[in-house]
Amino acid sequence: MNIGKNYTLVFPFILTIFNGQINKPKPPFFIMEKRYTFSEELINKTIKELNITDLGTATIGEVARLASTLEKETGVPFIRMDQGAPGFDACKIGIEAEKKALDTNVASKYPSPYGVGILKKESSIFIKAFLNIDISPRSCIPTTGSVTASFGSMIACSQREEKKDTILFLDPGFPIHKAQLNITGTKYLSFDIYNFRGEALIQKIEKFLAKGNICAILYSNPNNPAWVCLTEKELKQIGALADKYDVTILEDLAYFGMDYRTNFGKPFEKPYIPTIAKYTDNYILMLSASKIFSYAGQRMAICCISDKLFEKRHQQLAKRYNNAGIFGDTLVNSILYMITSGATHTTQYGYAEMLKSATDGKYNFVEAVKGYAERTEKMKHCFEKHGFHVVYNKDIDEQISDGFFFTIGYKNMNCAEIMKELLHYGISSITLSSTGSEENGIRACSSQMVDKMFPILEERLYAFELDNKE
Amino acid sequence: MNIGKNYTLVFPFILTIFNGQINKPKPPFFIMEKRYTFSEELINKTIKELNITDLGTATIGEVARLASTLEKETGVPFIRMDQGAPGFDACKIGIEAEKKALDTNVASKYPSPYGVGILKKESSIFIKAFLNIDISPRSCIPTTGSVTASFGSMIACSQREEKKDTILFLDPGFPIHKAQLNITGTKYLSFDIYNFRGEALIQKIEKFLAKGNICAILYSNPNNPAWVCLTEKELKQIGALADKYDVTILEDLAYFGMDYRTNFGKPFEKPYIPTIAKYTDNYILMLSASKIFSYAGQRMAICCISDKLFEKRHQQLAKRYNNAGIFGDTLVNSILYMITSGATHTTQYGYAEMLKSATDGKYNFVEAVKGYAERTEKMKHCFEKHGFHVVYNKDIDEQISDGFFFTIGYKNMNCAEIMKELLHYGISSITLSSTGSEENGIRACSSQMVDKMFPILEERLYAFELDNKE
Repeated sequence: MNIGKNYTLVFPFILTIFNGQINKPKPPFFIMEKRYTFSEELINKTIKELNITDLGTATIGEVARLASTLEKETGVPFIRMDQGAPGFDACKIGIEAEKKALDTNVASKYPSPYGVGILKKESSIFIKAFLNIDISPRSCIPTTGSVTASFGSMIACSQREEKKDTILFLDPGFPIHKAQLNITGTKYLSFDIYNFRGEALIQKIEKFLAKGNICAILYSNPNNPAWVCLTEKELKQIGALADKYDVTILEDLAYFGMDYRTNFGKPFEKPYIPTIAKYTDNYILMLSASKIFSYAGQRMAICCISDKLFEKRHQQLAKRYNNAGIFGDTLVNSILYMITSGATHTTQYGYAEMLKSATDGKYNFVEAVKGYAERTEKMKHCFEKHGFHVVYNKDIDEQISDGFFFTIGYKNMNCAEIMKELLHYGISSITLSSTGSEENGIRACSSQMVDKMFPILEERLYAFELDNKE
Repeated sequence: MNIGKNYTLVFPFILTIFNGQINKPKPPFFIMEKRYTFSEELINKTIKELNITDLGTATIGEVARLASTLEKETGVPFIRMDQGAPGFDACKIGIEAEKKALDTNVASKYPSPYGVGILKKESSIFIKAFLNIDISPRSCIPTTGSVTASFGSMIACSQREEKKDTILFLDPGFPIHKAQLNITGTKYLSFDIYNFRGEALIQKIEKFLAKGNICAILYSNPNNPAWVCLTEKELKQIGALADKYDVTILEDLAYFGMDYRTNFGKPFEKPYIPTIAKYTDNYILMLSASKIFSYAGQRMAICCISDKLFEKRHQQLAKRYNNAGIFGDTLVNSILYMITSGATHTTQYGYAEMLKSATDGKYNFVEAVKGYAERTEKMKHCFEKHGFHVVYNKDIDEQISDGFFFTIGYKNMNCAEIMKELLHYGISSITLSSTGSEENGIRACSSQMVDKMFPILEERLYAFELDNKE
């Protein structure tokens, strides 16, 4: 393994005294080696090879590729906290249903733009079972993962009324959502909810909506990256604002039921998972198979459009797409169908079967991925032991749950500094600034953490602490 | 079955004489029933229910839904010539490889934005084997069908230079490509090549390019819907124009090797399938699995970017996407990944295995779907027998091949008239006008035609002929 020479400044003060210039330290006299796992030279060389222009603002994909490349070149494993990828095996029920579907020749047939009937039906039942919300099968549309659902939904929302052309993000958030708008050149606004919870959150949102240019609000609940959750009271008030200002709420439920403070996951029984759909009819829910069924590889989600929103007619959509201007039909036929022509046929059968098992009470998807919370608890403990702190840690007055993501800060270091410094110790993450947060820190994902890596994490954080002590 | 009363004007002339107004015929005296399979009332009612605003400009999806709904409501089958969907079973090799992949837990893992290594490698070999073109595995990117490849490619091309913001389509073409640009609001121009072939085609194209605003030219070869093919000489000259004006050629090879005038399909042997890639380095080839392997349901294609184009740096891309501005990396990481986050993992293994079988000479994909040509030959014959004619029938001086699509006109009827009239006789198609053609007629797809439907086609066309004779 290539460990280069990496030094840290010690005693700059001595030098400044020698020069008689107390306030302007010059290059140091004496330097001490850092305990890096991956040398500065190696990392810089790899960054250059991968054409990463600025590590401080790198995308998740860039960080993931950097870590993979370094692992491959050196044979030394990273503590991979970068990408939010499943750390468990794919749900077997889906696998078997897909194999069965492959034997029925659906692979040769274009899927309907509206999706396979059985998946639409099971989606509708699943939503009733765990959210206690009614959405007709008609309005449940399979998409190539939630990213395609959000991409299409944000386009439809921003084109339905001339003046309403801007998306509002409740940050911190998933960086890809903003990157999607960069492709189309759609406007957006955002703010960090860290200092705005409860009444302050509602007031802050209303200030944006009152201007009249917001067409939709997007957030994920539980939040990616902060794992905070909007309270029922907050959801209720946001719902009221959605009605008052005719703004569509795009609720990303990627981590469905993974707020482990409450015991969700029992079909047709309280407690139901909190959702904006309880408080307004102006919403789209995005229900990914990636995390709850560990099914990220197959690219499958359901875009659940409120029936009332589905049926709304918009003159501007009719004009642009030369159709009847119906929101749901436009989103399906004129937008999503034109981008992917439906979602993988056999995977639709796989997803249908997984949803069915959950609503039948045969498969508890909440229990199946509870291991993430245990991993997060141990990781947080390890970080805190070595001088780090959890950045987003409360929902108003209640401690947040351990889950898939958590946020970590270190003393006065800024986002890019922590992220880059941790990389040298073989720990990959993304900056909180890339998620729209104004706090200093990183997003960490616990999903890839396995038992044998904990001693390595401990060792590396110990080295980090020694090197970064004042 | 509900057959309503439908009448046609006869003797309007008599009436006009009675009124003494030769030039302004009034409602007729005497009317004769038409031999419709589906009544005017039923069709109008269904159109209304499906919110189709104008049948004359209906999309493929709308026509397909209309035909399906009518079939379902009446139990009477349509001659489905609307959607270009495979009419054979999915290639078994792909099915088996997908099932194998499902057993290896790749379903839980996000696919790399660049695609699965084995598929990238096999794509590169396949292109060498059948096109005799070198593209590195790096530049072969799996996408959620060719539509996602064209959507992403057109975005990247139209954003790489400020002044070059317009796509040029060689029409007639696949209506979805233009609908894709409607989503993003990207500009396009187009012209019908019917009256411009050979030198005239090159001169016409150069006239567009000389203005400096064209970033890319898109066409499919063989052509959808006309089944014409650009000649080697035309491709060579278009390639030279691409170099001269720095314009990217987006070549849709959905019907790869299906020009049956030449016996393609033998790996690493002449004759190679014609392609623009032989004549310029400024191209993207789109290689769908939907038709050649009857794999439309799984949404899988390869976007093959010329290595030189892949590596080009564009300041405007760098600025917009905050990256190094490399064309290929931008298309993959900043555009395609943001829209679908990769293509279905197990399907990538399926496609890899199908491509491998073809290059190994174990599976002849050209022979496998040759049945379409036989169906088309019989269908054309039947149409011609009843007074119809083939609209696009020549490549300069050579007769076109029978294949997946063909074009049909009837006397002086315009596009919407033929399409709508045929619908009443239970024959669904799309208008040539919706494909950018200036000729009168419809696009017909032979893929769904099975033996037992030929007598029904014969019967319905006979009725059509009787009803529409002067």
